[in-house]
Amino acid sequence: MQLGLIGLGKMGGNMRERIRRAGHTVVGYDRNPEVSDVSSLTELVSALEGPRVVWVMVPAGAPTQSVVDELGDLLSPGDTVVDGGNSRWTDDEKHAEELAAKGIGFVDAGVSGGVWGLQNGYALMVGGDAEHIARVQPIFDALKPEGDFGFVHAGKVGAGHFSKMVHNGIEYAMMQAYAEGWELLEKVDSVTDVRAVFRSWQEGTVIRSWLLDLAVNALDEDEHLEKLRGYAEDSGEGRWTVEAAIHNAVPLPAITASLFARFASRQDDSPQMKMVAALRNQFGGHAVESAE
Amino acid sequence: MQLGLIGLGKMGGNMRERIRRAGHTVVGYDRNPEVSDVSSLTELVSALEGPRVVWVMVPAGAPTQSVVDELGDLLSPGDTVVDGGNSRWTDDEKHAEELAAKGIGFVDAGVSGGVWGLQNGYALMVGGDAEHIARVQPIFDALKPEGDFGFVHAGKVGAGHFSKMVHNGIEYAMMQAYAEGWELLEKVDSVTDVRAVFRSWQEGTVIRSWLLDLAVNALDEDEHLEKLRGYAEDSGEGRWTVEAAIHNAVPLPAITASLFARFASRQDDSPQMKMVAALRNQFGGHAVESAE
Amino acid sequence: MQLGLIGLGKMGGNMRERIRRAGHTVVGYDRNPEVSDVSSLTELVSALEGPRVVWVMVPAGAPTQSVVDELGDLLSPGDTVVDGGNSRWTDDEKHAEELAAKGIGFVDAGVSGGVWGLQNGYALMVGGDAEHIARVQPIFDALKPEGDFGFVHAGKVGAGHFSKMVHNGIEYAMMQAYAEGWELLEKVDSVTDVRAVFRSWQEGTVIRSWLLDLAVNALDEDEHLEKLRGYAEDSGEGRWTVEAAIHNAVPLPAITASLFARFASRQDDSPQMKMVAALRNQFGGHAVESAE
Amino acid sequence: MQLGLIGLGKMGGNMRERIRRAGHTVVGYDRNPEVSDVSSLTELVSALEGPRVVWVMVPAGAPTQSVVDELGDLLSPGDTVVDGGNSRWTDDEKHAEELAAKGIGFVDAGVSGGVWGLQNGYALMVGGDAEHIARVQPIFDALKPEGDFGFVHAGKVGAGHFSKMVHNGIEYAMMQAYAEGWELLEKVDSVTDVRAVFRSWQEGTVIRSWLLDLAVNALDEDEHLEKLRGYAEDSGEGRWTVEAAIHNAVPLPAITASLFARFASRQDDSPQMKMVAALRNQFGGHAVESAE
Repeated sequence: MQLGLIGLGKMGGNMRERIRRAGHTVVGYDRNPEVSDVSSLTELVSALEGPRVVWVMVPAGAPTQSVVDELGDLLSPGDTVVDGGNSRWTDDEKHAEELAAKGIGFVDAGVSGGVWGLQNGYALMVGGDAEHIARVQPIFDALKPEGDFGFVHAGKVGAGHFSKMVHNGIEYAMMQAYAEGWELLEKVDSVTDVRAVFRSWQEGTVIRSWLLDLAVNALDEDEHLEKLRGYAEDSGEGRWTVEAAIHNAVPLPAITASLFARFASRQDDSPQMKMVAALRNQFGGHAVESAE
Repeated sequence: MQLGLIGLGKMGGNMRERIRRAGHTVVGYDRNPEVSDVSSLTELVSALEGPRVVWVMVPAGAPTQSVVDELGDLLSPGDTVVDGGNSRWTDDEKHAEELAAKGIGFVDAGVSGGVWGLQNGYALMVGGDAEHIARVQPIFDALKPEGDFGFVHAGKVGAGHFSKMVHNGIEYAMMQAYAEGWELLEKVDSVTDVRAVFRSWQEGTVIRSWLLDLAVNALDEDEHLEKLRGYAEDSGEGRWTVEAAIHNAVPLPAITASLFARFASRQDDSPQMKMVAALRNQFGGHAVESAE
Repeated sequence: MQLGLIGLGKMGGNMRERIRRAGHTVVGYDRNPEVSDVSSLTELVSALEGPRVVWVMVPAGAPTQSVVDELGDLLSPGDTVVDGGNSRWTDDEKHAEELAAKGIGFVDAGVSGGVWGLQNGYALMVGGDAEHIARVQPIFDALKPEGDFGFVHAGKVGAGHFSKMVHNGIEYAMMQAYAEGWELLEKVDSVTDVRAVFRSWQEGTVIRSWLLDLAVNALDEDEHLEKLRGYAEDSGEGRWTVEAAIHNAVPLPAITASLFARFASRQDDSPQMKMVAALRNQFGGHAVESAE
Repeated sequence: MQLGLIGLGKMGGNMRERIRRAGHTVVGYDRNPEVSDVSSLTELVSALEGPRVVWVMVPAGAPTQSVVDELGDLLSPGDTVVDGGNSRWTDDEKHAEELAAKGIGFVDAGVSGGVWGLQNGYALMVGGDAEHIARVQPIFDALKPEGDFGFVHAGKVGAGHFSKMVHNGIEYAMMQAYAEGWELLEKVDSVTDVRAVFRSWQEGTVIRSWLLDLAVNALDEDEHLEKLRGYAEDSGEGRWTVEAAIHNAVPLPAITASLFARFASRQDDSPQMKMVAALRNQFGGHAVESAE
């Protein structure tokens, strides 16, 4: 089938390649003309026969909103828009309603797979009406990994991005789990080969996983991670997971601890620990360290 | 080779079977005569040709101490004791010294694999002198999973149990990660098939793992886990991991949150939240719920 | 001076009384005619000479929005609206703009004091233009505690509610701190009189505070808090504090832990701990507790 | 009455002064001859009439153990030893038994008050037999603050140090609470005078406390704490509180978060966040920061 694909960055570019390998036609658009198949959204829409399916793969928030607005003007009743970016689930219902008013279908798709997706396939969590999802199914089948897993119709509009968001929240806490264990092992003298311990865990243990395999890769490249700073960005999904938990009164202690550890990792000095130091000095005359 | 194996419970019994299948001779002893091959430790020691290797697989603390003491009296210089139970790493050095004084070697072995170990093999993390470990290697090879992983000489005496302990700490936080994500997904209306979401994650995602596969098994048996109470025991390892972290001034927020969640799960009512309720009532006249 | 006061509940009713005791005229309106001085907002506005000051003391969200909208229609340029309710700080700017378009001033006021405010005074944190605040100052002076503290012009519009929100976040963690300590003391056998320990802390310690005094009051009424359930509601401010922290990438581990403890306290059974129990059963054959 | 006082550092020196002001005789010993009244423990014991009371105020662990051992040799039946240092509660029973075997009484005393104690009095939490405590009561009365509070017989031997330990745990979380709130307020633009907000909270709020007064002192000296590094030591009590909680299966999320924040504050770079950064790079090709 034909697919319009908007956004050809690290993710979108690889996805175009994987869909084409499966025998489909992809018309890609990106603001960067060097990677783009067409020169405008108008041209992209013209290049597709109806009923069209257009996959949006641009940053969440204003960029996605702007593309959805434009597509609302350019597309026709019976067409379908897929938002495969990292949109917050709360945006999906708004986009779906906006497009539904014009007879255009909407599917939200959370996509996992990172730089490995081209080769291994992308895990897809989608939300929306079964009718709209059916129109995109050949593309989903091309993107997903081989085998029985890697694709789910998770529920109503928004359920795809919500599931992907929770996936990322879980990912934060799993990464934190390995990281905490690694630091503790590195700290003690009796364990003389921490890399070998991690490596050995890849079979037969309760904690074997793909992330563990990646940790071993990283340690194979840099045994004590001496080339890195302990500095970690966070994307929106981790924050949104905690916000969704707060909204639903669900306690998420491990995931939230993982998010906060990232926040702290990006501070050169901790304002809150200045206050703790100041208080200790006030009541106990405890020495403080000067900022210089 | 020959092995003496003390403790034939859920773990020890299966390990005897797996070692025998590999062609070794196992003389097993257990206080339960129905599963025991011999009727006493003395008989077990007599049944083995020197230099002997005796594997201790009994509960940590007093039971292990008592067996180590007895073996110290019964064994001969050149023999080797393996503690494959869940001993705290701090006990290992004591046991090693006690036995070394009599010329007996000591190896501590952390063993992972649970009820799946008989079939898939047991992951082994061992600590001690290379010379002592070499004496046990054929047994380790019989127990470990096939392939390149699942066995590590982690370091000095104690390093095996320490590594296994950290493994379990990581396991706590990984379980908590999936559990938090599952609760959040179950809570929202838009996600209509949480089990299908978990199932789909088994391929192509960042969070695929053996524990995830087990979660899917559990949901296949009981989709909303309605047959279970939210009640989780903790073994010593989770606690010891946090204690080791405190001792080494390593922050472990996610692992500790996971341990505390288990503590809280076992309280019928939370004393600390009684105090919070009492304080809210004192300053704000906020309603409290009576204990009845 | 004259004040219009909308909302005469537990807080508003006591505030009217304290302002009147200071010699001011208060025209109060409430949907409950039994406590209301006038029968409508229109009547309230008519009863005040210009330039008017009207204090809104109704629940955050839709109720406050609706009153602000009505006041925008009823009031005149040069009048001033004070939102003394528990509005989220993000609402303040919207309200200020809406009213400014009609020449009406806006001040947001966070109010602390609970049931003790009538007697001891209310701590006030206000945000807005100095000019608007000056119009309300006699009322602030009547409400605040005696002495040098208890009133602050915290900053721009929104700063009053933001400061009050953070106050409540701190309050959550302080309550949690005492509660955790109390539970631990109650748990050990050697400490035979926990209430006496708390009582003794009221002088000379680093942790003496008004909340500690309240804890002692509560223990004096019910030594082991046996009459209460460990069940604590949370108001919006705790949640908003964590959301603001996430928005600003500030780690708030203690405050967030306190919020999550309240969430957990309201669950009859913990879904996430069902999943942990299910996983333990899957890999280790560990016993689970059935839901019945 | 007469008191022997061993250890005349920052705490002990001030305590000697306060006890003398109350009219008692203090014979003080310190390894530093410049502050010492006598030149040896033997001389100290000789200088006191029986039945003697000797207060030990030296660092926890080996130093206290050594003094207790010496006093066991030097003192006579009917004498009493008070351990007023920061000993772990688990040491107290051992010391009590050791001395009881010689007919010497033992009282453990947790002492709070810091540099303010000389002037305001020291809060005292004591454990032991009523009979032994009675022998020391005049000294306790001299040390404690005026008024009804500041002294408690908390329970059996060990209960004094246990109560003081929990006091310090609560103190950690209270400091963390103010510190988190302060950082969040400093972070947002709308709040233009955070110091004034803290100052205002000293009356009428739910969170007024002595620690808040100290925070205001600190901000008065250095409004944005720019002269300090966000670096905080921890004493044994915080760690022991968490260990006691683990031993008793009591969840202490806020206190533990506060302890971990201190651990993290002392790391130049975070090993665990290196691992998180490495994992993000592995699966997502996310940029990492190099260590240089």
